[in-house]
Amino acid sequence: MNLTDAQRAEIAEARAASFPTRRASVPALEAILFEPVAVLDHGFVRVIDYMGDDAAVVQAARVSYGRGTRRVSEDAGLIRYLMRHRHTTPFEMCEIKYHVKLPIFVARQWIRHRTANVNEYSARYSILDREFYIPAPGHLAAQSETNRQGRGELLEGNEAAEVLAVLARDAAQCHDDYAAMLNESGDPSRRGLARELARMNLTLNTYTQWYWKTDLHNLLHFLSLRADPHAQYEIRAYAEAMLTSLEAWVPLTAAAFREYRLGAATFSASMLAVLRRMLAGEAVMQPESGLSKREWGEMMAVLNPASDESAP
Amino acid sequence: MNLTDAQRAEIAEARAASFPTRRASVPALEAILFEPVAVLDHGFVRVIDYMGDDAAVVQAARVSYGRGTRRVSEDAGLIRYLMRHRHTTPFEMCEIKYHVKLPIFVARQWIRHRTANVNEYSARYSILDREFYIPAPGHLAAQSETNRQGRGELLEGNEAAEVLAVLARDAAQCHDDYAAMLNESGDPSRRGLARELARMNLTLNTYTQWYWKTDLHNLLHFLSLRADPHAQYEIRAYAEAMLTSLEAWVPLTAAAFREYRLGAATFSASMLAVLRRMLAGEAVMQPESGLSKREWGEMMAVLNPASDESAP
Amino acid sequence: MNLTDAQRAEIAEARAASFPTRRASVPALEAILFEPVAVLDHGFVRVIDYMGDDAAVVQAARVSYGRGTRRVSEDAGLIRYLMRHRHTTPFEMCEIKYHVKLPIFVARQWIRHRTANVNEYSARYSILDREFYIPAPGHLAAQSETNRQGRGELLEGNEAAEVLAVLARDAAQCHDDYAAMLNESGDPSRRGLARELARMNLTLNTYTQWYWKTDLHNLLHFLSLRADPHAQYEIRAYAEAMLTSLEAWVPLTAAAFREYRLGAATFSASMLAVLRRMLAGEAVMQPESGLSKREWGEMMAVLNPASDESAP
Amino acid sequence: MNLTDAQRAEIAEARAASFPTRRASVPALEAILFEPVAVLDHGFVRVIDYMGDDAAVVQAARVSYGRGTRRVSEDAGLIRYLMRHRHTTPFEMCEIKYHVKLPIFVARQWIRHRTANVNEYSARYSILDREFYIPAPGHLAAQSETNRQGRGELLEGNEAAEVLAVLARDAAQCHDDYAAMLNESGDPSRRGLARELARMNLTLNTYTQWYWKTDLHNLLHFLSLRADPHAQYEIRAYAEAMLTSLEAWVPLTAAAFREYRLGAATFSASMLAVLRRMLAGEAVMQPESGLSKREWGEMMAVLNPASDESAP
Repeated sequence: MNLTDAQRAEIAEARAASFPTRRASVPALEAILFEPVAVLDHGFVRVIDYMGDDAAVVQAARVSYGRGTRRVSEDAGLIRYLMRHRHTTPFEMCEIKYHVKLPIFVARQWIRHRTANVNEYSARYSILDREFYIPAPGHLAAQSETNRQGRGELLEGNEAAEVLAVLARDAAQCHDDYAAMLNESGDPSRRGLARELARMNLTLNTYTQWYWKTDLHNLLHFLSLRADPHAQYEIRAYAEAMLTSLEAWVPLTAAAFREYRLGAATFSASMLAVLRRMLAGEAVMQPESGLSKREWGEMMAVLNPASDESAP
Repeated sequence: MNLTDAQRAEIAEARAASFPTRRASVPALEAILFEPVAVLDHGFVRVIDYMGDDAAVVQAARVSYGRGTRRVSEDAGLIRYLMRHRHTTPFEMCEIKYHVKLPIFVARQWIRHRTANVNEYSARYSILDREFYIPAPGHLAAQSETNRQGRGELLEGNEAAEVLAVLARDAAQCHDDYAAMLNESGDPSRRGLARELARMNLTLNTYTQWYWKTDLHNLLHFLSLRADPHAQYEIRAYAEAMLTSLEAWVPLTAAAFREYRLGAATFSASMLAVLRRMLAGEAVMQPESGLSKREWGEMMAVLNPASDESAP
Repeated sequence: MNLTDAQRAEIAEARAASFPTRRASVPALEAILFEPVAVLDHGFVRVIDYMGDDAAVVQAARVSYGRGTRRVSEDAGLIRYLMRHRHTTPFEMCEIKYHVKLPIFVARQWIRHRTANVNEYSARYSILDREFYIPAPGHLAAQSETNRQGRGELLEGNEAAEVLAVLARDAAQCHDDYAAMLNESGDPSRRGLARELARMNLTLNTYTQWYWKTDLHNLLHFLSLRADPHAQYEIRAYAEAMLTSLEAWVPLTAAAFREYRLGAATFSASMLAVLRRMLAGEAVMQPESGLSKREWGEMMAVLNPASDESAP
Repeated sequence: MNLTDAQRAEIAEARAASFPTRRASVPALEAILFEPVAVLDHGFVRVIDYMGDDAAVVQAARVSYGRGTRRVSEDAGLIRYLMRHRHTTPFEMCEIKYHVKLPIFVARQWIRHRTANVNEYSARYSILDREFYIPAPGHLAAQSETNRQGRGELLEGNEAAEVLAVLARDAAQCHDDYAAMLNESGDPSRRGLARELARMNLTLNTYTQWYWKTDLHNLLHFLSLRADPHAQYEIRAYAEAMLTSLEAWVPLTAAAFREYRLGAATFSASMLAVLRRMLAGEAVMQPESGLSKREWGEMMAVLNPASDESAP
């Protein structure tokens, strides 16, 4: 994470301010407000504003005149109830705004979450920094042989070294040519290509940045998909950093979210039938379970988290 | 506006609190936070939370690291530019939450604005108050003879008196029967009809209430449609109360909104052709203008706001 | 369901037409197109247009150049995969449009599904029919004693008779007064109240109607909430009629939906821990399960669907 | 536009099919259904499905039982009325689905329109074709000197030649390295980098493709922004191709759209004040107009479309 001195000063100045407010406020989130948390090699995520707290969820569920909170234990119970029964609208009453620096290919996955507000740094107006994502060796994975959209084992030795060199070289070459086409050096014999065109020469691991604002319900939906082990590592790294801010902001909601979403599992009608037979003492095997091998494996992985997925 | 003592106490308690925050804060809006503003005979609207300010719009447009504001005049200029060119996403970066008490038939118009978050008081759980909207005599209008969805002149004399009496009688009768079906009196020989069914006996002028949260862009869209003279009076009364909170919250945005939306007018391609002929000195008349009588009237009303709409 | 002769003729005329199209078409849905299916006492739901079929889901998932279908078994497998892993965007590629006649209090629940397009019959322009929902005796339930938003046992005897009489009388009285205030009889000494005002005198069981259009993903979401036993009976009646059109339209998707949504169950992190102990042969009881009594009951109801909910 | 023989065969097969339907159908759109229209150097746009027609807009506005159309002239009048008064919901009742091949940097602008459904070709699953957008010399513009986000004059001579060579070389180099990292040649000593990682090496002018579906209202909104002269040329090229399909599909709506949107202009409150003075015969000049030079120029450009923007 490379911040310029000017950027650091701007952040420090924003953090130094303090205003009195009548609004719901969360000291644990105020403590980290504006602070960038490093993600990947040059990225970050930082909370830059928020609205509401756990009590605001309760308040909305009750449409009350005053602050929602009576006792924390009551609030926790109501929040668990709302989460369990998918009463989602009270969670829409809280809002959070992030400033994120991220590679363009991650931004392309992220933007598919449509129920959010976004302002991205515009490469039609401005010139993108010379910063690219290059995976750490521990994330440089081969194509999975069993999952068409996943990663397999790590690349090693020469192949890994070559890949890292190529990624770095191509990104740098493209950005250098981008700057040259823009005539950044100010050569008076050149006009400089329009920024809105020159940007097409950048590679997808170039960093961009945006303001991203969403409500608590949609944030939880985002996190349930992107903090999931099936999500691509690079976006998951952001989701995990955001989970930390969730805990600081709305601890009761975060706990209910772990209980009823992140740590929960859904069983299909056929899986439930298998489960009932098992609980009745029957030794069910995959071939006569009515489940495909893949679904059987998924079910066993949930029931025996430590075991091998392929075991019955 | 009838608040119980308990409700007044809850509001007073919320207003008495003060927390330190690093967030963008607006003293003029803090001053009226939580205070209900009376609308219609028993309704109100009050701001119960907000996020962002004029500077947050600027900040988002620039995707900056610190607070957006440099000089107020620069911010004003940028906000005017964004409003004029319909760059709407920076306005989505501010959010406001209202608590509204309103008749059900108004709620049915209002809810058609889908880009908002809503928690309505549930008549499946709770019992609605015995409060109905009865128009003031100055709003008791006859059906318009020229506009199938509008109002004409005021009702007068016996007809007005009868209408007011009928509205009050039917609403009261229906609510009394609602309470009786619920067995509110606790008659041990009755079970009481389920609340989710009994509510169907209420009339559409019964008051309900909700929390309604939206972003600044969508609030402006709501106000441009509902603070408009063509909107039904009853919802316009709410929009006008909300315009006041807009001025307190984001004065630069509110000024740009008046200049480029509320006070602006759009001319169709044919109207522009007429306008060009007029500016070239031609005395254009409706029959050879290419405009229908109705469009001609609308155009003249914009160009000569004080004159009679039907005049050429 | 009371249709006028003119309405029946319009429907018959629409059904008599036939056009050649290159678009994906579904004979089973064409067979019932435009036909109203009766719901409640005066309501209906009918499909009036659609776009796409099961193959269109497959086609979108593959972003293919031609029709998606290769073999039905392959399509079924991919659709099951998409449903299981909540890859929802391919289901958004199909669209359906309904014409629905429904009581206003049901419309108010329904409209909370925001990701849909709606055109409702306007009582600002037009006059609503004199039709009200009066529950059949088999649905006239008392307030539940255990669930604040549910129904308990049926009302009986005098209480039931009185409730039905009151509902019918108040709705009729309010509609008669509505018609009188509008001066439907054309009394020349009266002006007639504006329609946009007079409608406030109607009760919430008055029927309205609308066109409602949504994509297949959002339709499934609607059905998963509204065809659920916890939904209020009146809206569930509509959802069940719509399930039938779903089966006709996209049979592979409908089957996957029953397997992975309607017939599925989600277990929280704590429930999974209990389940693992049970499968290991432990006789877990509620008090030491870590689950509340209510959650324990819900879990047992899923595992032993025929048994009493309160049993361990 | 390079289609493989297999792709051409798939398209031909889809076009050869014909099904009978009771649905609203549009022969002029059926005629071009599935046919790709070339855009830019390797892109295309083609309509692959639709729902509704002009009459469906009318039908929705009336919530009618049969087909909307009575007389074409009546329908045209109602559609013009709806467009003029921004009654947008009836236009949401029609839906269209496109298959688009487009450069990634264009896709990034396009995706900001959130009210649409999208399935993009996944570079996590599949390998992107070796096709890049290289501007035609007539679109190779310098950065505008007056507009920070626009284009100025064309690049010429050596500078143009160099830019074209660099764009082509870098894109090809990056794609070659992408293919090598994936181990497309099948070198047994290499594992091949995961596709979800290798894609980050591609440049932003690489072509991707997607299915994009939206309703008529949101299509018009998209076209009003993207078929506008201020839009970047590359996305405008797609919007213009889509305008052609709009004319084939809903000719009455398209005509109203040209009259009240594309060919219309909005005047701010201050511009209206200037206009009234001008129409009263006053010779208003910019300095005492109350308008900034830029706004004055914009207004004059609308009133005198042939003249130079900077005059008078």
